[in-house]
Amino acid sequence: MKRSRVVIVGGGFGGIEAAKALRHAPVDVTLVDCSNHFTFQPLLYQVATGALAPSDIAVPIRWLLRSVRNVTVFASRVTGIDPDARAVRLANGKTLEYDYLILAAGSRHAYFGHDDWEPHAPGLKTLEDAVEIRNRFLQSFECAELAESASERDAWLTTVIVGGGPTGVELAGIMVLIARKALRRDFRRIDPASARFILVEGGPRLVPGFPAHLSARALDDLTALGVEVRLGASVTAVGDGEVRIGDEVLRARTVFWAAGNRGSSLSAAFPNCVDRASHLNVQPDLSLSGYPGIFVVGDQAAVTNPDGRPVPRVAQGAMQMGRRAARNIIADLRGEERRRFVYHTHGELAVIGRYRAIAEFPWFTFAGVPAWFLWLFVHILYLAGFRNRLSVLVQWGYAFFTWQRGVRLILRLKRDSSRDT
Amino acid sequence: MKRSRVVIVGGGFGGIEAAKALRHAPVDVTLVDCSNHFTFQPLLYQVATGALAPSDIAVPIRWLLRSVRNVTVFASRVTGIDPDARAVRLANGKTLEYDYLILAAGSRHAYFGHDDWEPHAPGLKTLEDAVEIRNRFLQSFECAELAESASERDAWLTTVIVGGGPTGVELAGIMVLIARKALRRDFRRIDPASARFILVEGGPRLVPGFPAHLSARALDDLTALGVEVRLGASVTAVGDGEVRIGDEVLRARTVFWAAGNRGSSLSAAFPNCVDRASHLNVQPDLSLSGYPGIFVVGDQAAVTNPDGRPVPRVAQGAMQMGRRAARNIIADLRGEERRRFVYHTHGELAVIGRYRAIAEFPWFTFAGVPAWFLWLFVHILYLAGFRNRLSVLVQWGYAFFTWQRGVRLILRLKRDSSRDT
Repeated sequence: MKRSRVVIVGGGFGGIEAAKALRHAPVDVTLVDCSNHFTFQPLLYQVATGALAPSDIAVPIRWLLRSVRNVTVFASRVTGIDPDARAVRLANGKTLEYDYLILAAGSRHAYFGHDDWEPHAPGLKTLEDAVEIRNRFLQSFECAELAESASERDAWLTTVIVGGGPTGVELAGIMVLIARKALRRDFRRIDPASARFILVEGGPRLVPGFPAHLSARALDDLTALGVEVRLGASVTAVGDGEVRIGDEVLRARTVFWAAGNRGSSLSAAFPNCVDRASHLNVQPDLSLSGYPGIFVVGDQAAVTNPDGRPVPRVAQGAMQMGRRAARNIIADLRGEERRRFVYHTHGELAVIGRYRAIAEFPWFTFAGVPAWFLWLFVHILYLAGFRNRLSVLVQWGYAFFTWQRGVRLILRLKRDSSRDT
Repeated sequence: MKRSRVVIVGGGFGGIEAAKALRHAPVDVTLVDCSNHFTFQPLLYQVATGALAPSDIAVPIRWLLRSVRNVTVFASRVTGIDPDARAVRLANGKTLEYDYLILAAGSRHAYFGHDDWEPHAPGLKTLEDAVEIRNRFLQSFECAELAESASERDAWLTTVIVGGGPTGVELAGIMVLIARKALRRDFRRIDPASARFILVEGGPRLVPGFPAHLSARALDDLTALGVEVRLGASVTAVGDGEVRIGDEVLRARTVFWAAGNRGSSLSAAFPNCVDRASHLNVQPDLSLSGYPGIFVVGDQAAVTNPDGRPVPRVAQGAMQMGRRAARNIIADLRGEERRRFVYHTHGELAVIGRYRAIAEFPWFTFAGVPAWFLWLFVHILYLAGFRNRLSVLVQWGYAFFTWQRGVRLILRLKRDSSRDT
């Protein structure tokens, strides 16, 4: 009997879990990702702030799947999907035919129709994004030290972070600490502690996915650290050296974007299922309406739980979807009934600086030092790959006791377009 | 009394040592480097081969000099030197006037008049270079796995390394081991162990700076590892996917350049002192003829020892020159006599793969396992900064016992030219 061909697009939490769950199924799996590595996204902000090196939170996808013998990994960009021909096209011209397709291509940040803001306000979804943010964060102090006038210096020492979700809160909380503590003795002409960090959130409270009292706690903690939090405020313009918040114009040389979420551009292949933010609406079994052989998992999917609440775009959601999609393929092959996807939360955590975090579990919530230690424990436990875990421990231990950041590198690399695959 | 102003261009081994040696002198020092970090260059090849992360061998220059209170560090590119006005111009328009100038701007690789080869054959002088080489090395296996034909696959699995000095020998020795060992189980359509590595050296022997019997040892070791060594062979053309060695045309998609050395382009400001390779000929006291206030140290300088032998372009040479230049400035200020520079070697080491190295000391030489352990000991000892030392130990230990490489990341970053400083 011919073995079914499964193509998985995307090697994040959803795609990797799907591939692993198909390990013993009578299928040949091909996983395609435009990068060669799986990224532990919940710790991206630690790379963006120089606490960890990129390699601490990433491992090669093919190394992760080296013992899953029915999976072939291709590091290539997907340039198109042809659902009628049941084929995926790759950048090098290769075509992959499939019987089942699992779309796990993730999301990018969205600029609400202002894509011209992106060069001025990079977001944080990939390792490359994280290195770009790290470069700009560190470079702003270098430029301030070089500045010839007070106004120029102040513009370099003003950073605006747009978006009060977990990423924005985590970035702001750590960046202010670095400026106050880690950089203290290193400059001669500026006082890094005088740097301003302004966190802008359009809604009425921070981390809106958490209960209101934890949002209040996050606001208190960030304010105590020295972050200026602007709630109910909208960014109306982002230019070179300027940010407009409502009617106020702020001279700020450094802007980071942690607002908005838009599904992969590959979603456009399915005009009947795609929503306004490029996410794909799926059936309860995670397949696309009209395409029973195509599943969507992770950030690219728009999924509603049976209780009517949307499934949050977090790692555990993506992993659970990846497993469900894989098991529904196996059910098909066995002539069994597919099952509907149900999201089970294991709790949510967000860190606010040192010793401060908030935690939400199905039956209780807490904050402060215990939440911070829980966060530490959970992330060390789940970080993929032994080496990284030990290396991360060493680096965190160093950073914790010395207040120094391990990775204060400004690295400027050329994009080698001739090698794009 | 007005304090003398010293400007140091370059934050490598020479520049940093000069700055430290001026710590207690009655001078105000400004050190300028286009990057924000000091790089431990002898271990660059370990980053290029994925053993270490960039942050393991680099620390911020201003952090290194944080306690040297009379030094101000600027992360900026030097765009010109005006020796008549005694001024250095920076990319942001700032001008630094000096009473003493220490040029420590290092060197780049030279393509012997074929600068058009550079995009096809990157060299290894900076962290950015190392990440570029790591990207290409890892990408070649990814492209081979994707290849549609045997000839295409073979071209991706053929790597040419040009230059049989320590860098070329170290790259070839480690790359062949990675292909044979670390990548063994990770691919489905190719056998990484079948990858060819061809090391091309124009002269009659490898590592010509070492005694002949150690060159022979290096040749034996590399050949045993599976590297194809071509001695007395010249690369006559490098194109996209092809390398010409003498009259032979090799289909090779990956080429690395470890030959030739050219001083910084800043040397051109001194047409009377510059040699054909952009190095600056210096007086015995390391100053430039006709410019008693300007010293040149490190790779940018062309220096001959009193015994008539040229001073090798290695870290210990640069450090000794940096100290000598600083002390000669102090001698000036005290009205004392300047001293001439004399290079004292502490021995030379080069690594060839695992457990293999060669070592040359003033009174004896040795090779093999003891040389390898000595190399390990010396490099851990000298690596700047405590954190890096521990992190390097963890990563080397992991790599040694598992044969795995810690850093198998292909990272493609955009050069953000708008922020060039």
